[in-house]
Amino acid sequence: MAKTKIKRKPKREKSLSKKSGLPSESMVYVGQNRDLKTSIQVMDYDGVQFTEQSHSHQDSLNHCMQSESITWVAVTGVQETEKIVSICNQFKIHPLVQEDILNTGQRTKLETFEEYLFVTFKNIYFNEEHLCLETEQISVILGSNYILTFQETQNEIFDNIINRLRISKGTIKNKKSDYLLYKLLDAAVDQYFILIDKISDIVEEIEEETMYSPNENTSKKIQNIKKELLILSKHILPMREVLNKLESGTSDFIDEKNYNYFRDVYDHTYQAYDTVENHRSLLNDLMNMYLTTTSNKLNQVMKVLTVISTIFMPLSFLTGYYGMNFKFFPGLNNPESIYYFWGI
Amino acid sequence: MAKTKIKRKPKREKSLSKKSGLPSESMVYVGQNRDLKTSIQVMDYDGVQFTEQSHSHQDSLNHCMQSESITWVAVTGVQETEKIVSICNQFKIHPLVQEDILNTGQRTKLETFEEYLFVTFKNIYFNEEHLCLETEQISVILGSNYILTFQETQNEIFDNIINRLRISKGTIKNKKSDYLLYKLLDAAVDQYFILIDKISDIVEEIEEETMYSPNENTSKKIQNIKKELLILSKHILPMREVLNKLESGTSDFIDEKNYNYFRDVYDHTYQAYDTVENHRSLLNDLMNMYLTTTSNKLNQVMKVLTVISTIFMPLSFLTGYYGMNFKFFPGLNNPESIYYFWGI
Amino acid sequence: MAKTKIKRKPKREKSLSKKSGLPSESMVYVGQNRDLKTSIQVMDYDGVQFTEQSHSHQDSLNHCMQSESITWVAVTGVQETEKIVSICNQFKIHPLVQEDILNTGQRTKLETFEEYLFVTFKNIYFNEEHLCLETEQISVILGSNYILTFQETQNEIFDNIINRLRISKGTIKNKKSDYLLYKLLDAAVDQYFILIDKISDIVEEIEEETMYSPNENTSKKIQNIKKELLILSKHILPMREVLNKLESGTSDFIDEKNYNYFRDVYDHTYQAYDTVENHRSLLNDLMNMYLTTTSNKLNQVMKVLTVISTIFMPLSFLTGYYGMNFKFFPGLNNPESIYYFWGI
Amino acid sequence: MAKTKIKRKPKREKSLSKKSGLPSESMVYVGQNRDLKTSIQVMDYDGVQFTEQSHSHQDSLNHCMQSESITWVAVTGVQETEKIVSICNQFKIHPLVQEDILNTGQRTKLETFEEYLFVTFKNIYFNEEHLCLETEQISVILGSNYILTFQETQNEIFDNIINRLRISKGTIKNKKSDYLLYKLLDAAVDQYFILIDKISDIVEEIEEETMYSPNENTSKKIQNIKKELLILSKHILPMREVLNKLESGTSDFIDEKNYNYFRDVYDHTYQAYDTVENHRSLLNDLMNMYLTTTSNKLNQVMKVLTVISTIFMPLSFLTGYYGMNFKFFPGLNNPESIYYFWGI
Amino acid sequence: MAKTKIKRKPKREKSLSKKSGLPSESMVYVGQNRDLKTSIQVMDYDGVQFTEQSHSHQDSLNHCMQSESITWVAVTGVQETEKIVSICNQFKIHPLVQEDILNTGQRTKLETFEEYLFVTFKNIYFNEEHLCLETEQISVILGSNYILTFQETQNEIFDNIINRLRISKGTIKNKKSDYLLYKLLDAAVDQYFILIDKISDIVEEIEEETMYSPNENTSKKIQNIKKELLILSKHILPMREVLNKLESGTSDFIDEKNYNYFRDVYDHTYQAYDTVENHRSLLNDLMNMYLTTTSNKLNQVMKVLTVISTIFMPLSFLTGYYGMNFKFFPGLNNPESIYYFWGI
Repeated sequence: MAKTKIKRKPKREKSLSKKSGLPSESMVYVGQNRDLKTSIQVMDYDGVQFTEQSHSHQDSLNHCMQSESITWVAVTGVQETEKIVSICNQFKIHPLVQEDILNTGQRTKLETFEEYLFVTFKNIYFNEEHLCLETEQISVILGSNYILTFQETQNEIFDNIINRLRISKGTIKNKKSDYLLYKLLDAAVDQYFILIDKISDIVEEIEEETMYSPNENTSKKIQNIKKELLILSKHILPMREVLNKLESGTSDFIDEKNYNYFRDVYDHTYQAYDTVENHRSLLNDLMNMYLTTTSNKLNQVMKVLTVISTIFMPLSFLTGYYGMNFKFFPGLNNPESIYYFWGI
Repeated sequence: MAKTKIKRKPKREKSLSKKSGLPSESMVYVGQNRDLKTSIQVMDYDGVQFTEQSHSHQDSLNHCMQSESITWVAVTGVQETEKIVSICNQFKIHPLVQEDILNTGQRTKLETFEEYLFVTFKNIYFNEEHLCLETEQISVILGSNYILTFQETQNEIFDNIINRLRISKGTIKNKKSDYLLYKLLDAAVDQYFILIDKISDIVEEIEEETMYSPNENTSKKIQNIKKELLILSKHILPMREVLNKLESGTSDFIDEKNYNYFRDVYDHTYQAYDTVENHRSLLNDLMNMYLTTTSNKLNQVMKVLTVISTIFMPLSFLTGYYGMNFKFFPGLNNPESIYYFWGI
Repeated sequence: MAKTKIKRKPKREKSLSKKSGLPSESMVYVGQNRDLKTSIQVMDYDGVQFTEQSHSHQDSLNHCMQSESITWVAVTGVQETEKIVSICNQFKIHPLVQEDILNTGQRTKLETFEEYLFVTFKNIYFNEEHLCLETEQISVILGSNYILTFQETQNEIFDNIINRLRISKGTIKNKKSDYLLYKLLDAAVDQYFILIDKISDIVEEIEEETMYSPNENTSKKIQNIKKELLILSKHILPMREVLNKLESGTSDFIDEKNYNYFRDVYDHTYQAYDTVENHRSLLNDLMNMYLTTTSNKLNQVMKVLTVISTIFMPLSFLTGYYGMNFKFFPGLNNPESIYYFWGI
Repeated sequence: MAKTKIKRKPKREKSLSKKSGLPSESMVYVGQNRDLKTSIQVMDYDGVQFTEQSHSHQDSLNHCMQSESITWVAVTGVQETEKIVSICNQFKIHPLVQEDILNTGQRTKLETFEEYLFVTFKNIYFNEEHLCLETEQISVILGSNYILTFQETQNEIFDNIINRLRISKGTIKNKKSDYLLYKLLDAAVDQYFILIDKISDIVEEIEEETMYSPNENTSKKIQNIKKELLILSKHILPMREVLNKLESGTSDFIDEKNYNYFRDVYDHTYQAYDTVENHRSLLNDLMNMYLTTTSNKLNQVMKVLTVISTIFMPLSFLTGYYGMNFKFFPGLNNPESIYYFWGI
Repeated sequence: MAKTKIKRKPKREKSLSKKSGLPSESMVYVGQNRDLKTSIQVMDYDGVQFTEQSHSHQDSLNHCMQSESITWVAVTGVQETEKIVSICNQFKIHPLVQEDILNTGQRTKLETFEEYLFVTFKNIYFNEEHLCLETEQISVILGSNYILTFQETQNEIFDNIINRLRISKGTIKNKKSDYLLYKLLDAAVDQYFILIDKISDIVEEIEEETMYSPNENTSKKIQNIKKELLILSKHILPMREVLNKLESGTSDFIDEKNYNYFRDVYDHTYQAYDTVENHRSLLNDLMNMYLTTTSNKLNQVMKVLTVISTIFMPLSFLTGYYGMNFKFFPGLNNPESIYYFWGI
């Protein structure tokens, strides 16, 4: 049961207004302080070969834009503003996009520019220590033959994809950069299901508890998990919008043949959202159940009190009656009175 | 009354994330372990003849695609991955569709491909033992002259249709494969009404109970049935979307003359959804009724307690008063005092 | 007050699944057993004359389709399946429509076919005996110069229209069959207002009761009338959809000049729906009011109890105190003690 | 505080079904009996002159349709059916519109005919006596150079406009009839704000009361004002629809140059609706607040009771203990016992 | 804790109807009395130079419309009607717009005229004294090479922008007037985040309080902050609509190249709205939590009462029993009786 106790994080960072007052295009990192150096990993592949190397931000990257092979520039850590800006400038990224990459409080969204597609979304994972949801922002820029990813932490969400590229497994190496975007989004949506499974376990435990052993902490547990579900649902919804735009062919950067793949991920977000909504509506019902049970318990307690009062108040009166010190009192001197008394 | 007691299933399988981490096109069965060998039944018919035979998955099936007659390949049991994949490959089914067939947690949906139409939906039935809803996934692939069905269990939902084909009753044998699809979907939607009838009975019982003999289990019963209705409603809604797409002619695989049939099933899903929503809103009201009744009962109990206290507390005081041991006490020695006392 | 007591009907018929398992086009009556022979009344009119006669179902009716005058074939009682089928076949009605006529659980809907328009809706009336809403299904087929109506019972809803035809009053005889359809739908919508007025009376009574004399039955009354309003609202909504389709000119069978008339009925359904929704939201508020009142009453009762306890418990203690049998007890022997006691 | 007490009107008229059963085009007054003779005031103006005269309904009015100047025929009192019909016929108004003018239970709506525009809406005012909202129906017919208004009562809502015409103030005399329509609608929407201000005062009082001195009538007050707001909101919404249609240029009768004016009124209805919705949501919260306060009070009362019981029940037991008549009783004969007793 | 106590403003001004009855185009200030003289500051800039001077309203301003440089006329204080009107007339602003500028109760909106664009919105700030939200209306008129701003108070919201113009920092001086509009709106939306951060702090405090130390003021705090959030949300929503119109290119006054900027602000409003809605839904849950806690407390109190009664009522009866004055009483004379008594 202890497992379901969701402690609050020490303090959610309130970074929303950190930038207010600054000029809109000034490049400032907005987000949690993560103490992570920016590292750049450049992967280059086509159907035949795969090369991989670490870059420093001074190295020129813009040969990627000319080469025919697909280049994936994976940037980890976005706290070093000037490095990020320098990388972005090499790819001629619009200042507003750079700003969005640096501001980790973005809403999940898709923006189409002439030369590239910009997607920013959240990787959501379960903080096992504080038992709450944590998010990291991932920004992806999809050009015709390159892809840039900016990841806030060293989370291993894309490791599986990189490994498959390395060992040349699956079709991924033969596909274009839009297929890689699909794999990245697919990986993020898969995370939702892992989370939902964890939350489903907790919800089931809470359901059990509410039904058969409600106690004072039950309502707090319900409330806590509802809050996490609300957060989750607020992230899934815009992700669904993004995928809907991608699968419905509004963008030139996605090959028509790959619409199926994005539609598949879109279906998954739908499913995830449905499950989250089901859980939320279930938790609302459980809260009502809990209130009903509390109310029933009160009734139970009051009935006990009333029964006891109903029995003993008249009896006490009777004993009091015969305890009065009237000199003349009918019955007191009668030895059988005590049995009459019990008769009553 | 015992009939309405809906026990929880031992454990809902949490299979959502089973596949997370795997490459998106790897073929893995995701779902309940059902211990059912995959069996293949091939039915072939045109206006004149009907043949039927069992196949093993090694047999070549692709002659079906060339023949002029309608071929129905009914596969039961989707747990043997390699068999399913082998069948699908013979019909050149897209890997993402194969994956959807194997992942039994799909949301009901319709997907149109160039050479075929893919529909996946749930057959919902009532588990009489645990008194809860159970679902099995049915996937249908509709080609121009063949139809593939993948059924998770040996449920008899389509037996009636097969029998009609065997005994050449009705118009079904003279129609194309799209008409067969209609019959399959119709059979699934008919299941909803059987379920709704069962649930209606239970709701009526609960209504009776809430109105005239509410007890502590009433709220649990309401909660349980609400949960089942939520599940049912979440399955009917996407089914309605699928049928809407089919009846509005967005697909080339459905003959215009048959739109009426799909519209008819569409109307049924509408009706089913309405009924389910009515029940849900009724159950919400019953929950309120129950709370009100509980509250009224408490009032009743408290009134009894108050009346008893109001009568006996002053009386007890009086008896106590005359029970005091003051030496000088007015009235104690008066023989009529006891009658005065009763007078008060 | 007794008037508002809405007894439940003995048993709502659960006919939804009666047909499940049967082939979709098999003609079976689905609905309440009404024990009513099918009778056919044929009315024929144009601007000049009006003839009226009873038919048996064997008589040929298809001359109606050729004649220039408007023919209204009014069928009462749809339980005799073969008669209905025989009539429909004469007018070449699609089997699915025939099925809808026989299945009295249809959702109100409009379907356009090449040769005719099919409308099915509910006549809702107040069962004065059980004080609840009852519905009967009315199906109308509108051809270019004929109209077929199928009515479940001998309800007099259309008598007024027939009388106007008989006595040649109003413009109805000079108009085409689409105008007759308008008159039929108008009659059905007028029924809503009669019902709403009856329900308004009951709601007002309940409001009075909740505000000034709430008792244990109040919540049951609110719940019952809410349920009836839910039913009513679920019938008005699809009726509005049907009328919207008719007035917006999606069908060739309605003359453009008559759109105004259908728009008028459409406005009425809007108004009816608004009123029903108002009542429902009012009843929700009343339920809250009731709960608040109950809660206030409990407070009242508890205050009485507390006041009595606060007065008499200390007093009882005092009397008990002086009732103790200590040999040495200060004050007991003082004759004035009793007055001190009262002073306290 | 007394000001906020909203007494119910003696009886809302239930006129909805008064006409049911009558042929749809029969002209019957439906509404409250207002005992008001129909009076006709004809105003005629152009940029230069303004004439004004009372008419009887027999006078011919159709010269208005030919003249170049703008004619405003203001009819007050619509209870005299044949007069209204006679006026309407002179302007060749469609029978359904005539019916709508006579039936004062219309929903606010706009209808476009070939020769004129028909708008019917509600003038809502505060009944100071019963402290509730009252409505009167106003119907306006806008032709190319004339305007007809039908007002149910002698309400002074348009007096301001007439005065401005008389004293030639503002631009109104130089504008066409569509500008006059704008002025009329603007006057009606201005009424909403007067009402909303009155209601805002009451809501503020109720908020104060709920927060700082809740009593048993608070919930009734909240409920009553909620009901009035519901009515108000149900009238503003269709008014907004009407104005939206007018400002978006769907009608030929409104000059494009005047769209701005209608958009302005449209904005006002939006603002009014927002405010009403705010109040409604605030009142819902207040109802919850009230329930919470009630619940808190109960807790308070119960705590007092429990504290008193906790103190005096053990004490009473103790006094009872030492009041027992056992012959052998430890401590009774000890003079210090009484002090030990107090020590406990 | 004291910080979260939100005192009500002395009195919200009810200015909605102040103008009712007046002709629609009469220029009257409607709003709070702010006692602020109207001051006019004219800034003129192009890529090279920046000049700034104070004007009186008599000075001619219409040279701004001819010059090639961008002119920003910043008007502070809109209470002096004739000054505002005089300025507006120089720029040939439509009377309805002038009216909107003077009426500070406008809903946030965008209106496109032939020669200019009109935007009115609210600057929302936190009143630290009364701890509630306050709004000031800001109206902006965007011409091709000039911009007019009308600000209700001397709030410093735009100081940052003016400073950047003065010190020639950023790209703002090289951009056209539409970019300046973007900066103004961006500044207003940035204010939302400052507010949301303040409110987030309060909500977090309240959450803590509700969970761990609920008291009688908790519900009032929840209610108060909910009300402020409602107000905030009602201002953000129309702002989002305005920005949506601007970024989707419906207006000729915005250069296509700058759509990105407006889309960026649009995204921010989306994010702000999401956060506000999250807080509102969280507060609703907290209110439920609070009620549950209250209910639990009551149960606790009642249990204590019942336990005490259950123990001491029977005991009191027993002591009463042995306190009765029956002459013949079994056990009274037995010295061990007292130990039997304790045994019971």
